[in-house]
Amino acid sequence: MNKKILLEENEIPSYWYNILADLPFPLDPPLGPDGKPLTPDALAPIFPMKLIEQEVSRQAEIPIPEEVRRYYAYWRPTPLVRAYGLEKALETPAKIYFKNESVSPAGSHKPNTSVPQAYYNKLEGIKRLSTETGAGQWGSALAFACGLVGLECTVYMVKVSFQQKPYRASMIRAWGASIFPSPSEQTSVGREFLKKDPDSSGSLGIAISEATEDAATHEDTHYSLGSVLNHVLLHQTIIGLEAKKQFEKIGEYPDVVLAPCGGGSNLGGISFPFYRDKFAGKRIRIVAVEPKSCPTLTRGEFKYDFGDSAGMTPLIKMFTLGHNYAPPSIHAGGLRYHGDSPIVSSLVKNGLMEALSVNQLETFEAALLFAKTEGIIPAPESAHAIRGALIEALRAKEEGKEKTILFNLSGHGHFDMSAYDDYLAGKLSNYEVTDEQIKRSLSLSKI
Amino acid sequence: MNKKILLEENEIPSYWYNILADLPFPLDPPLGPDGKPLTPDALAPIFPMKLIEQEVSRQAEIPIPEEVRRYYAYWRPTPLVRAYGLEKALETPAKIYFKNESVSPAGSHKPNTSVPQAYYNKLEGIKRLSTETGAGQWGSALAFACGLVGLECTVYMVKVSFQQKPYRASMIRAWGASIFPSPSEQTSVGREFLKKDPDSSGSLGIAISEATEDAATHEDTHYSLGSVLNHVLLHQTIIGLEAKKQFEKIGEYPDVVLAPCGGGSNLGGISFPFYRDKFAGKRIRIVAVEPKSCPTLTRGEFKYDFGDSAGMTPLIKMFTLGHNYAPPSIHAGGLRYHGDSPIVSSLVKNGLMEALSVNQLETFEAALLFAKTEGIIPAPESAHAIRGALIEALRAKEEGKEKTILFNLSGHGHFDMSAYDDYLAGKLSNYEVTDEQIKRSLSLSKI
Repeated sequence: MNKKILLEENEIPSYWYNILADLPFPLDPPLGPDGKPLTPDALAPIFPMKLIEQEVSRQAEIPIPEEVRRYYAYWRPTPLVRAYGLEKALETPAKIYFKNESVSPAGSHKPNTSVPQAYYNKLEGIKRLSTETGAGQWGSALAFACGLVGLECTVYMVKVSFQQKPYRASMIRAWGASIFPSPSEQTSVGREFLKKDPDSSGSLGIAISEATEDAATHEDTHYSLGSVLNHVLLHQTIIGLEAKKQFEKIGEYPDVVLAPCGGGSNLGGISFPFYRDKFAGKRIRIVAVEPKSCPTLTRGEFKYDFGDSAGMTPLIKMFTLGHNYAPPSIHAGGLRYHGDSPIVSSLVKNGLMEALSVNQLETFEAALLFAKTEGIIPAPESAHAIRGALIEALRAKEEGKEKTILFNLSGHGHFDMSAYDDYLAGKLSNYEVTDEQIKRSLSLSKI
Repeated sequence: MNKKILLEENEIPSYWYNILADLPFPLDPPLGPDGKPLTPDALAPIFPMKLIEQEVSRQAEIPIPEEVRRYYAYWRPTPLVRAYGLEKALETPAKIYFKNESVSPAGSHKPNTSVPQAYYNKLEGIKRLSTETGAGQWGSALAFACGLVGLECTVYMVKVSFQQKPYRASMIRAWGASIFPSPSEQTSVGREFLKKDPDSSGSLGIAISEATEDAATHEDTHYSLGSVLNHVLLHQTIIGLEAKKQFEKIGEYPDVVLAPCGGGSNLGGISFPFYRDKFAGKRIRIVAVEPKSCPTLTRGEFKYDFGDSAGMTPLIKMFTLGHNYAPPSIHAGGLRYHGDSPIVSSLVKNGLMEALSVNQLETFEAALLFAKTEGIIPAPESAHAIRGALIEALRAKEEGKEKTILFNLSGHGHFDMSAYDDYLAGKLSNYEVTDEQIKRSLSLSKI
């Protein structure tokens, strides 16, 4: 049988799947500063109307504009790959498949939403998008999309990452975007922080504040976000929709789907289309894999909290470790988020999604086995899903059961090689947060 | 029409095309230290018999082993991509296509030969491969292949590159290979150089000597080379064979094929299958694009010279700037070779291939236009072909002519971002070598 299950370009899905149409439970709305449910109007200064509509829509299938499908064709459909090499190394009776989202020019699943976001903004006459980025995955994905669609782009990158991961910044520049280490002199928020502490190494919270101020104070500029929000996860469902077509092609269906979970966008992207079947009675397990050092879904509290550490966003109902939670600096930067997508959180809360936490060292061990047997050096984030798949495959072996496993290879590790160096040099360690620490963070983060 | 022209896995070619069967002129043989044509036996201590046979074979179609085709399927067939974005930006009537070899796990065309080389060595009972690497493209491709096939791998990396490009070394380690900055303490050659100069920053010549000594002094170890040799170019013809099938699918045929040229392997790979038609009378132009700072084909001399700067290899008949030529350190490290594949050299000498030299700054300018319009950040080597394609496309516009252009995108630039930084910061410059310098190098390199 084939190593890769491919689709033709005309098989790129014509719609995104909106899970909000089918959720078997109500979803608590985001709340504004007045404690009342946020109205769509409140978002209008920073988002285009089309995206706001998508954020709240209850329509199951949202058509993908033809032009977005043409941009998707620059790298999509992505291959569904049978991990023969990995299966052989594990001597497992399980079949392991992965969806290879690392083939996008930005190297991850992020362009699945940056491209339609850029497109809708362009359509509304917006000239420039602003955003923040931590490790740089999202910033580079938005810079790529703006280059393609023809928008200007300004990225506020957390200063410490800007210094430690210079090549993500180079990518952002290569695609023609402007990039500022945050806090910057570009915004009043940034200048204030710099006045207080000229050597501030920045934080995602500050960078978000800079990017939103930039958007709010410039008529021609909107803000763009890479995870957590409903419309972001909606765009990412292109992953699962393709995967379902690919499984159909070979007459198979996964027993379990795994994905790394930070804000929830790649997890929602690969899994939501399978929920459509699950809600209709199909037996399928969905597993979110998160780091033990930032165990939002496995040990957080389900409650209203701020989306950012600065407490400037609307309040959203989600699993959270408290918006003041400061996760240790593990290498999977994309998974260091105190909260989680409200939809993902609710699925876990309602027993429809499992959550698994794994340690840093075992994720790198899994990543190297994957690199050697499947050839691709994965992003540390994606290595969490690989670890999860390994656990499933070894359990199948123990139980002598056939099983079909699907995981999302959300990105490659080309810009994370220093993490591999540290692992191979024995410089990395595990970090399990204590109950006491979580309790303290939650109490410090009271709203 | 589609953005990408794809092939199914069962369409991976079943043979490599051996241009030696059809060359309309004789090829001068490599010469041993005694000045007599090298016998295949002389190569037996460091190469497996199957590769030596391929090096001298006159059979036009050499079957690709099934197992190699299965490994190829890890990333092949690679897409043939219509560069709509680039065409639009240039407002050219020309159709521009590129073969995207950057999708391999190592990020370039190099695994097309590292995989069969590892496979044939494994088949002969070899346990380990040794090789040298400059910027790290080849070393990482061989490490990847050895990981997949199940061989040990030792890479001697020129010390200055080892220090300047640490992430290529990390990749090599991630795939399980051993890597030593050269000169190293591992070999007697290395120790000698270190005794003379403990701070030696190394050279490709020294690294070659270390890798071949390692292979020659260990029964279970062979040596592996990433370019120049006939069997290397043979394996690379998978690129052109696929491209021909892809053009057939859409009922088109290129008027001109361009590729960057260092040692000649990606150029030979994409173009040789088209020569089969050219030899039969078909009108098609093939253009090698090289840097003006290392203008081997455009300004070198066609003569016998050593393949390495240390003067330890057999003598080969080729275009050369003299084996002592020290090209300036331009960022396209893969194109800084004083000589060229004997087959490629002979095609140019016999008027069957054109050669074009371009300046560094115009290649980066082309690279950024490509990144913005096609999304992919190219390797600086590949940017030479992009520049060449731009020249062809703009000429077509001037002349108001339709024309079909094909170029080889030999790799991505994820490990070359510092070069982009330097370009964007205005730190790069052009460098055109003078006639005087070439004359001096050739006279210093007399054999």
